[in-house]
Amino acid sequence: MSLLDQPHHDGSAAYVPPGPVTPGDAVPVRVRVPHAADVQGVWVRTVRDGEPRVTEARLDVRGEHEDTYVADVVVHNPVTGYRFLLGTPRAPGGYRWLDGTGVQDHDVPDAADFRLTSAPLPPSWPGEGTVYQVFPDRFARSAAADERPVPDWAVPTAWDTEPAPDAPLTSTQLYGGDLAGVAEHLDHLESLGVSTLYLTPFFAGRSNHRYDASTFDHVDPLLGGDEALAALSAAVHARGMRLMGDITTNHTGEGHDWFTRAETDPASPEHRMFLWAGQGEIAEGGVDVAYPGPGRPGYVSWLGHGSLPKLDWGSEEVWRRMVDADDSAIARWLQEPYGLDGWRVDVANMTGRYGATDRTLEVARRLRARLTGLRPDAALVAEHFHDYTADLPGDGWHATMNYSGFARPVWGWLADPHGAPQYGLPVRTTPRPAGAMVAAMRAFASRVPWQVAAAQWNLLGSHDTPRLRTVVGSAEAVELAATLLHTYPGTPFVFAGDEVGATGTNGEHGRVTMAWDQAATGGPRWDTATLDVYQALSRLRRGSTALRDGGLRWAVVEDDAVAWLRETPGERVLVVVARAPWSGATLPPAVLGDDAPELLHGGRLVDTPALAVTADGVRLSGEGPAVGVWRLA
Amino acid sequence: MSLLDQPHHDGSAAYVPPGPVTPGDAVPVRVRVPHAADVQGVWVRTVRDGEPRVTEARLDVRGEHEDTYVADVVVHNPVTGYRFLLGTPRAPGGYRWLDGTGVQDHDVPDAADFRLTSAPLPPSWPGEGTVYQVFPDRFARSAAADERPVPDWAVPTAWDTEPAPDAPLTSTQLYGGDLAGVAEHLDHLESLGVSTLYLTPFFAGRSNHRYDASTFDHVDPLLGGDEALAALSAAVHARGMRLMGDITTNHTGEGHDWFTRAETDPASPEHRMFLWAGQGEIAEGGVDVAYPGPGRPGYVSWLGHGSLPKLDWGSEEVWRRMVDADDSAIARWLQEPYGLDGWRVDVANMTGRYGATDRTLEVARRLRARLTGLRPDAALVAEHFHDYTADLPGDGWHATMNYSGFARPVWGWLADPHGAPQYGLPVRTTPRPAGAMVAAMRAFASRVPWQVAAAQWNLLGSHDTPRLRTVVGSAEAVELAATLLHTYPGTPFVFAGDEVGATGTNGEHGRVTMAWDQAATGGPRWDTATLDVYQALSRLRRGSTALRDGGLRWAVVEDDAVAWLRETPGERVLVVVARAPWSGATLPPAVLGDDAPELLHGGRLVDTPALAVTADGVRLSGEGPAVGVWRLA
Repeated sequence: MSLLDQPHHDGSAAYVPPGPVTPGDAVPVRVRVPHAADVQGVWVRTVRDGEPRVTEARLDVRGEHEDTYVADVVVHNPVTGYRFLLGTPRAPGGYRWLDGTGVQDHDVPDAADFRLTSAPLPPSWPGEGTVYQVFPDRFARSAAADERPVPDWAVPTAWDTEPAPDAPLTSTQLYGGDLAGVAEHLDHLESLGVSTLYLTPFFAGRSNHRYDASTFDHVDPLLGGDEALAALSAAVHARGMRLMGDITTNHTGEGHDWFTRAETDPASPEHRMFLWAGQGEIAEGGVDVAYPGPGRPGYVSWLGHGSLPKLDWGSEEVWRRMVDADDSAIARWLQEPYGLDGWRVDVANMTGRYGATDRTLEVARRLRARLTGLRPDAALVAEHFHDYTADLPGDGWHATMNYSGFARPVWGWLADPHGAPQYGLPVRTTPRPAGAMVAAMRAFASRVPWQVAAAQWNLLGSHDTPRLRTVVGSAEAVELAATLLHTYPGTPFVFAGDEVGATGTNGEHGRVTMAWDQAATGGPRWDTATLDVYQALSRLRRGSTALRDGGLRWAVVEDDAVAWLRETPGERVLVVVARAPWSGATLPPAVLGDDAPELLHGGRLVDTPALAVTADGVRLSGEGPAVGVWRLA
Repeated sequence: MSLLDQPHHDGSAAYVPPGPVTPGDAVPVRVRVPHAADVQGVWVRTVRDGEPRVTEARLDVRGEHEDTYVADVVVHNPVTGYRFLLGTPRAPGGYRWLDGTGVQDHDVPDAADFRLTSAPLPPSWPGEGTVYQVFPDRFARSAAADERPVPDWAVPTAWDTEPAPDAPLTSTQLYGGDLAGVAEHLDHLESLGVSTLYLTPFFAGRSNHRYDASTFDHVDPLLGGDEALAALSAAVHARGMRLMGDITTNHTGEGHDWFTRAETDPASPEHRMFLWAGQGEIAEGGVDVAYPGPGRPGYVSWLGHGSLPKLDWGSEEVWRRMVDADDSAIARWLQEPYGLDGWRVDVANMTGRYGATDRTLEVARRLRARLTGLRPDAALVAEHFHDYTADLPGDGWHATMNYSGFARPVWGWLADPHGAPQYGLPVRTTPRPAGAMVAAMRAFASRVPWQVAAAQWNLLGSHDTPRLRTVVGSAEAVELAATLLHTYPGTPFVFAGDEVGATGTNGEHGRVTMAWDQAATGGPRWDTATLDVYQALSRLRRGSTALRDGGLRWAVVEDDAVAWLRETPGERVLVVVARAPWSGATLPPAVLGDDAPELLHGGRLVDTPALAVTADGVRLSGEGPAVGVWRLA
């Protein structure tokens, strides 16, 4: 039996009316029930004020191969969970559940229930194209960079030098990239279908990564200062792209003027902005308390690193300076002439959390309200390397960087067979079967509302991880991964350099510069074949509503191959990715439309499978490695 | 490979030091790693302030067949999640996770992580024996019952009449059981190893079930009034048993004097105790708003039933009268001469929830604090038919009635093959394979701290569900289910009558009276063979520390058979339950101790498997239906 013979529902427009819901709404939700599933009777189970209700669904459309049922879900709570009860009198048990992880043969907790949320939709613009991450020190140097003095903490480093993988050089090598350099290369971004340029921090710190901000009031002069940001913003917006910054809400740098005053004057308003040893619930010598030296008080800091003192979101002064004031850290830069379109939030998973205190959801909600008050379509995306699902009810962060639900699963399926490094784990990773990848993807996606899952920043690496090319071990495997990236629900996110084959064994080692001198002809640090793959995939995605906004139905999950359908009410696209030769598969005839299937995209460095319409349905051949994308209807 | 060849951890004393933890503690957690699992390297992953840490575990004990590793988990948040990372360089992927649902071959969300909680432990006394549920109208009539006047709502009904399955008689048939009647039959409770007598409501209402309380100030005169409760309490305590009541925190009865005053006087303090249509977020004609009649205002009520107006836990007056006052509903009855040992909380899942308001955890925590302030070992157990896991962080309800994590899974495995009714579902249930039962049990148990899972009230039915005997279809199947009940982690809970084979197609129909006239000789409503099973199982459980307090390792999960180990540092007990003939199994030799296995319990109405020690380990024969319990070490 094909996976496509299973009943299916997701939160996309084919099943749920688009848009946020309002308490009092009766929202019609639809479920696709193939005849092959042998279902007798369909109900929807919702939870209201903690109590389930089971309501019978109505037959909506009877088809040759499958039927559609519809039931109304009454909205009453901010998040309304629901799943489907399927009568299966001829199967053991007599019934099945359909939730966000698929059809379940046993009673399940509500964690993977589908969800309607009354939160406004996330902005659509990040998902219209690719989010492109630039680490300013490493992207491009303008001529002006040569004129700037070198700060005392920095080790000036030539542009084509391989970054150090280990401290102390990792944070002190200064390559001298700047914002004017970024502005000089926007053609490159356009060729990749970039909708959003995301810059890691542009505030001055005492490091090349600038996550240790000394101020939130000015752009680092090493990057060209405030004027350079204004100029870049104008250039980005002139091309119809958006610009996002990177804000540290969990901590400042030890050198931040707030912290300097806080430390030297216990009576200052700044003192109450940080978390000090021996105060409140914070023990002397306690968890993550740093002691900078004799005569200086201990304070809570990021993972105990004294360079990053942690902000106390129980402090009104933090709220005022970070959020609420007209010139607050997050508000100032959304206004002209800087005009940021939103923020990526660093260490969002820890922000507002310490011991018995957990203000993370409150911070997310108030930051969102502040940003969207300034710009209704502003975006707020959280860094969250781990299990983000409890932090994403839909009304706080619009989305997260989707390491757990996308990057890690893909790394696991496509890992270098010789073993790959993986962020945060002390073991090397070798390839897993696709079933493990899909189980992880579904486990995370099912725990957030569809409108959040569809806005997630899916990625294959960042400045914090080993480089994709190093993890998967070959350009061919990069093509497989990039195909998944550009065809999976959510926003594709590319760390500058991945598209030209950058390598690196850890986050710091992978912060390589862009080899613009090799761009015209290709070279060891500019893989034109990989760039062609990324450009083709971005064009593919831009040309298909279903790939951008459609639902997701799994069609094939074999050890070495996956296939899925992306569907809107008007379009059905089939995506096939195989890492090795496999048996091929036959999809049921219900997937076909009136016209013949159209190949939209095939492999550049890998094969393209053959697709044939037969009496049994759609036959896919089993080449591998291979990718193929067809419009079926 | 046996399931016992998998690495294992749970929260029991063999793996985690007993007792609550305190922030700052470094808690040594142990994991059992059989050599057959081919594990190279063990780490523990904890989450602190939202950020994971991975720490290498140390080899603690090297054994002939298996090793034990230990790692310290630093406690910092109220609940500390952790799971184990297992290096498996010779298996695809290179590593595995071990969480509360077992060994995982893909990256997982944190939902099933093991948990340490700084909440105090639940009281131990309910779990020392069986919790026995009495529905006072149906248990026993004292001679005094004949003297009492019949209230206007009631339909007097003869003791041996079968209860009506449908309204309106379901709530009006009055059989006239009373508290003195209960006191006359405590010998029966003692014969079942009862630790705790739990009474459904004893406050007067306008129904036989009394969930529509007219007052919380007095015991229903139909039950004998306050004096009868005091007398029953004294009798129960004299036998070393405990007594628990049943409180409706979600609503009162429409006839409650609070509601009468609230409705007639909008300026009264009582008015603000309820939720009225058109106030706050509550729409006219909105969700669950009842309109009792012309000239009366609409109000929120339980599932829209006007007889049960919902309390507003945003009202200080509710807090005062229900919780905080010396003579509050929950406080008054814990004091002498009534001396209740705790409360079962009706509709706990909805209490404090309405629309955007969710005070359920707050209610649970404050109720617990109030009760344990009066009696440090008071118990607070929530009704929750559904997914209770989010409501059980460990510091609120001590436990819930475990329908989702025990009753439903067992019903599903042992359902009458001809189809069984199931509470809350519009379909009949037929038997599922044991894998489905175990998956459901593990899904729910893994989402709460072990100390909560080990305090859950496991049940096979209540006054709200079809009777066990009707669900499973035979006395033999009842024996299988009862064996699971008495040997699974948690507190066995028996609804009076199950032990003598009571039947009923739904909750109301199953509220049969106890046929005391048949007790001496047996009869159609007093199945002495089933009673013997229950008595033997309660003796078994009382005689084994491992069955009461041990961890849980799954040993066999076949379609028709399950086996598990219950283990404390000093004892290992094997439980086998088969619903039909199966292949039998061989358990690895590591399960054996120095002495020969000892049969503790065998089938009464069903077979007992054979257990043989062989060169390969322990051979279990495949009879079925069958039960067997052995002490292995």
